[in-house]
Amino acid sequence: MNKNINIAIVGLGQIGNFLLNELNKKKKDIEIKTGKKITIVAVSAKNKNKKRKFKINKKIFFKNPLQIIKEKKVDILFEIIGASDGMSKKIVEASLKNKIHVITPNKALIAKHGDYLSKLAEKNKVNLEFEASVGGGIPILRTLKDGLATNKFNKVVGILNGTCNYILSEMESTNDTFSNVLKKAQNLGYAEMSNPKLDLNGFDALSKVRILSSLAFNKKISRNSCLMEGIENIETKDIEIVKQLNLKIKLLGITEIINNNLFERVHPCLVGTDTYLGNINGVMNAVILNSEPVGETVLQGEGAGPGPTSSALLSDLLSILRGNIKYPFGISEKKKEQN
Amino acid sequence: MNKNINIAIVGLGQIGNFLLNELNKKKKDIEIKTGKKITIVAVSAKNKNKKRKFKINKKIFFKNPLQIIKEKKVDILFEIIGASDGMSKKIVEASLKNKIHVITPNKALIAKHGDYLSKLAEKNKVNLEFEASVGGGIPILRTLKDGLATNKFNKVVGILNGTCNYILSEMESTNDTFSNVLKKAQNLGYAEMSNPKLDLNGFDALSKVRILSSLAFNKKISRNSCLMEGIENIETKDIEIVKQLNLKIKLLGITEIINNNLFERVHPCLVGTDTYLGNINGVMNAVILNSEPVGETVLQGEGAGPGPTSSALLSDLLSILRGNIKYPFGISEKKKEQN
Repeated sequence: MNKNINIAIVGLGQIGNFLLNELNKKKKDIEIKTGKKITIVAVSAKNKNKKRKFKINKKIFFKNPLQIIKEKKVDILFEIIGASDGMSKKIVEASLKNKIHVITPNKALIAKHGDYLSKLAEKNKVNLEFEASVGGGIPILRTLKDGLATNKFNKVVGILNGTCNYILSEMESTNDTFSNVLKKAQNLGYAEMSNPKLDLNGFDALSKVRILSSLAFNKKISRNSCLMEGIENIETKDIEIVKQLNLKIKLLGITEIINNNLFERVHPCLVGTDTYLGNINGVMNAVILNSEPVGETVLQGEGAGPGPTSSALLSDLLSILRGNIKYPFGISEKKKEQN
Repeated sequence: MNKNINIAIVGLGQIGNFLLNELNKKKKDIEIKTGKKITIVAVSAKNKNKKRKFKINKKIFFKNPLQIIKEKKVDILFEIIGASDGMSKKIVEASLKNKIHVITPNKALIAKHGDYLSKLAEKNKVNLEFEASVGGGIPILRTLKDGLATNKFNKVVGILNGTCNYILSEMESTNDTFSNVLKKAQNLGYAEMSNPKLDLNGFDALSKVRILSSLAFNKKISRNSCLMEGIENIETKDIEIVKQLNLKIKLLGITEIINNNLFERVHPCLVGTDTYLGNINGVMNAVILNSEPVGETVLQGEGAGPGPTSSALLSDLLSILRGNIKYPFGISEKKKEQN
């Protein structure tokens, strides 16, 4: 890798815009930590003149992200558009084919096309990194690929969707209805305004479970049908009844190996009020890893929002700049084919 | 780094012996994950014929670890003797000078000589890794150096000594005396038989605090005098009184920056029974990291014992084999000199 690294950011919504500001603020620190010199050479979004919290340099603005690759020399590209297909997929694909490292928080893209894109990255000898796709700012993927990498994983259980956990916690503490609390979550920016469905029906958590399974058990991303149930049908009276039993309702994502078979699921679970998961409230995420010989490891942190997401995106950047990551999924493709 | 890597293990107590077995068991997996071929070329301990849980290969046994360096070509050495000086320091020093990477769980050594040894490692372009020195199997040092590396840390608080936490939890649940519970801890292998003092008086936790400070705040290991109080004077009646107030006594290690000054301390603290730290019982360790912009991150896991320690030691091995680690303390010495 050269000493001078050119960076592009595609997608300047709340996250992309925050990341841009963080990168500018932390440029020197990152350069000291990695020995590289970084320059942001391109940014892209639908609307050049939209009002944003942090200013963008309009001289390096591109309306069409694919144009960046044609016109600029880019080493590392952040894809922060979202969605599993469309321009997200196109720009990631084009980047990898052009030997550009890609960093993304896009769990839908990775859960759907992760195997294909990882192969593409490996073929072109660049990295595809997605720490921010699961658990927000919690370094959970790193922990699987690196910190606990020599352990044998048995089970991973987590509160993986901050929106659902906020709604359930809030229904519990206020006795308010699902639809009222959802509105409140939307006003606070914890739930999407236009289409909160993918959070509420468990799909978002399931994408994260698929990614966790792949890394914990060294497997391709599974396409198996599995139980996926969200929180849309939970009513105030459900919460009231379980409270009397000293229980809480939590939306859990679970993946485990039972009799050599992968068993993934996302659904509301009853947990004791005095258990660890019973005490994870609001938008927090928590993951419990069960592996040998290390035993039980717990990681907890803020699951979403610009701060945590940007922290995870920059940790990927640091690893790439340090030349730390060899395989997109932490294992060689050869090994994965066998699974 | 060559494809063929020679490994030595110095110290074959409970941990070293378990590690040896794990390495043999996981050789293939580690080779697939790193693309290297590993061979254990030397082991060393005081007593060649001591009964051990897992068999050792007596053909590669050395009574004097320094002899290994003279007679064998070693790439990576595990120092698992313990203690801040004596043979531990000698073998680590000699290894680094001979361009041998060193991996150690020895917090006393690192807290006392970490800066000097890190410089020695950097000068000789090898790694000195000590993930296992803090938090047992919890990948806490990695999280500071890597997963959350671009965040600005404000404060780190933790239950860092499993022995003390076990004793306090047990006194609380059984109402038994300190000395009885200590005996129980010793019989269970949670406290040292001959000299449990360094755990009980807070020294072990303080060593860990010093290491955490250095990594969280990019500083040299501090030598500042600070408050260090252990749990030796806690009586059954203390526990009883705080219980009535819905509180628990926990030995906490704390490090934070206040008005640009580093403030480190270890002492028993009162925490609420319904708080996160109030619910960490037995030999568990937990660390709460407060940093920006990621917010609060919590890591929890088993703090000691052969399984967790060996997991951390092998994660260091993996990182070295992957060529992932450039600076012993995660930053260049140049930067650290300024602090």
